[in-house]
Amino acid sequence: MTKPLTIGVAGLGTVGAGVLRLLADNASLITARAGRPVQVSAVSARDRTRDRGVDLAGLRWHDDPVALAADPSVDVVIELIGGAEGSARALVETALRAGKSVITANKALIAHHGNHLATLAEAHQAAFRFEASVAGGIPIIKALREGLAANRIAAVSGIFNGTCNYILSRMRAEQLDFATVLADAQAQGYAEADPSFDIDGVDTAHKLAILTALAFGRPVDFASIHVEGIRRVSALDIAFADELGYRIKLLGIARATDAGIEARVHPAMVPLNAPLAQVDGVDNAVVIHGDPVGDVVLQGRGAGAGPTASAVIADLIDLARHRATPMLGVAHADLAMMASMPMDQHRGAYFLRLMVQDQPGVIADITAVLRDHTISLESMLQHGRSASKAVPVVLVTHVTNEHAMRAALDRLAKLSAVLEPPTAIRIEPA
Amino acid sequence: MTKPLTIGVAGLGTVGAGVLRLLADNASLITARAGRPVQVSAVSARDRTRDRGVDLAGLRWHDDPVALAADPSVDVVIELIGGAEGSARALVETALRAGKSVITANKALIAHHGNHLATLAEAHQAAFRFEASVAGGIPIIKALREGLAANRIAAVSGIFNGTCNYILSRMRAEQLDFATVLADAQAQGYAEADPSFDIDGVDTAHKLAILTALAFGRPVDFASIHVEGIRRVSALDIAFADELGYRIKLLGIARATDAGIEARVHPAMVPLNAPLAQVDGVDNAVVIHGDPVGDVVLQGRGAGAGPTASAVIADLIDLARHRATPMLGVAHADLAMMASMPMDQHRGAYFLRLMVQDQPGVIADITAVLRDHTISLESMLQHGRSASKAVPVVLVTHVTNEHAMRAALDRLAKLSAVLEPPTAIRIEPA
Repeated sequence: MTKPLTIGVAGLGTVGAGVLRLLADNASLITARAGRPVQVSAVSARDRTRDRGVDLAGLRWHDDPVALAADPSVDVVIELIGGAEGSARALVETALRAGKSVITANKALIAHHGNHLATLAEAHQAAFRFEASVAGGIPIIKALREGLAANRIAAVSGIFNGTCNYILSRMRAEQLDFATVLADAQAQGYAEADPSFDIDGVDTAHKLAILTALAFGRPVDFASIHVEGIRRVSALDIAFADELGYRIKLLGIARATDAGIEARVHPAMVPLNAPLAQVDGVDNAVVIHGDPVGDVVLQGRGAGAGPTASAVIADLIDLARHRATPMLGVAHADLAMMASMPMDQHRGAYFLRLMVQDQPGVIADITAVLRDHTISLESMLQHGRSASKAVPVVLVTHVTNEHAMRAALDRLAKLSAVLEPPTAIRIEPA
Repeated sequence: MTKPLTIGVAGLGTVGAGVLRLLADNASLITARAGRPVQVSAVSARDRTRDRGVDLAGLRWHDDPVALAADPSVDVVIELIGGAEGSARALVETALRAGKSVITANKALIAHHGNHLATLAEAHQAAFRFEASVAGGIPIIKALREGLAANRIAAVSGIFNGTCNYILSRMRAEQLDFATVLADAQAQGYAEADPSFDIDGVDTAHKLAILTALAFGRPVDFASIHVEGIRRVSALDIAFADELGYRIKLLGIARATDAGIEARVHPAMVPLNAPLAQVDGVDNAVVIHGDPVGDVVLQGRGAGAGPTASAVIADLIDLARHRATPMLGVAHADLAMMASMPMDQHRGAYFLRLMVQDQPGVIADITAVLRDHTISLESMLQHGRSASKAVPVVLVTHVTNEHAMRAALDRLAKLSAVLEPPTAIRIEPA
């Protein structure tokens, strides 16, 4: 048996403690699959005295995480601190510069600094691995980078944020509004005290930035992603979605088009027969459309100590076995400089909901606006009548473009009979 | 750029031609991901003159596939002849003995000779890769062997045969009987002229043998798998399954139990909320239950030139990148000698259908037999009455064991009011 692989773990929160626990629990199995023992030699965290339920005896302790990069007892640095800047970034960069391989679960870091890190890793012949950064325990990075490497990828889409999917699933199952479910999710620990990273789509966009780079062999480009969150999804829209045969999901979608790579995060209407429609609760799922493989779907738990530790240690076993791969699947110099498609060139169908005053001529005014922007309708729904209150009118369009839709929405919002800002939700094909 | 990786392809049927076509179509992308050019240098097939729609100009031709193993222009042998014996086996063994790496899609070969081939590969430091042997384009071998390598696997189950899934899906959708759909599937090319390998469950069992070895880190043991096919699945049972909230699927299931590893292939009742219930047509899908990752589901096309070529070339890119792994995930000496659980120790719930003469006392006789074998009932269904014809009685049991169920079925078959051999279909939990 060759010599043990030694690791230093920075960050001993839920995931860090989960990694130490899994290394202990499945030690003999991990040793056999890694071909040699994997040993934690050093750790770093803020509070040395806290009980994390894992045994830290005999491990070197560093108050400064960056010191792990210089610790001669550490072969591989595992960064589980989080955040795109600060000590997480400093540790990763220092380790790579020292030629030490790095494993991380830090999607924000890669979304913002992935290209720099890829160049650093290549220059110093260090590995930079991040299976845990997207979709938790689902081995999606490995699937895209290795398992489906022979394919030209046409599109990747998925549900990448368990908090949002949990909220949307419960809103539908219990017919509750967004604020009620969010508050309950926070009370139960399914949502953060400050939930904006999740519910505003930023976390999904970080993950999509990583998958887009891998899928299309291009540099990471977080800034090019169009991002909308789920704050404005209403119980009423979810009810209409049900009636029309859709589920509303927060999706991350990247697609190759003639006008460049389209990458967007927003709530979407997903037809019931699409694989993503059936993914409920905190699960994540990814659909890859490749040529010649066709559609491949992967589903599993997207977060939590166990699934994330599973991904971190899969990376570790690869390193122990010397299974090497460039960070983005190809050498940095081989990445393609593809254009990003601006969002206003997006083409697709839309669900529109308008709250209108129930009076003669309203529908004529609305459909005239749509006609002026050459938006054609597939169907229209109107329930209930009321002389005093606003009533919902739902319109489903044929495929049109975002630019025309935005112009039409501006005009619709100004109609005197339209009493609230219109809601538009993009419809994704199955 | 390092020197090209050269390959020899044996077998130029649908899959072999698909591999050559994909290497040509996606050449620049494959070169970038492989880190060097991948070049076909030699081929072997039966008929030199047949037009396969791919350019063979400049390639060395060998009438004898085994000659590829000795061809100095060949770094890696790709075996796409098929079959557990004959020239496929001779080629693979000769190549491995010569220290040449081998890629194959041949599940029968691995199911029957996997342990010998693993030992050969290890002794001669050659790689032996077989991503294409299970579930076509779905990277399930890589997921189990690498992506989920940190997990203790509790169970692997799935739909591994597109022909059977297509037949069962159509029987349900169009309410047709088995023979009608099989004949039509044969006419359309979805089923072989001699369909027994598929419909008798043998193909599924070959694939399950491979996954069981990988999942549990034990030698390949095809003989220990209990195998039943779909010939006896009737339109009536499919209709009852619908009524009870199940789909009937041909599953391969491997599970760690206290009594050893249970591995079985048979038609099963799958609850509608289980991921496998929604997999229709020629798709394949796999559910892996791992600790700590939880359930991971992978779905995609399980056969065809494109998906299979995708898997073969993924293996090739791994070899080009020197990403090495023992054939079964761990060194052969580290495989665990786990017992196999005999099928009569299986525990589970059952769907029973009896065709009975509609007369007083029949139900009492049936339930008395079940009571004698301590089999308790969850529900009973009886539709229609007829003084002249047999009427179906459907019973759903609580969890019991196979031994008791077989004994009960023997006695039920002998009751004078039971007019046809009883049907029993195992129910799988979601």
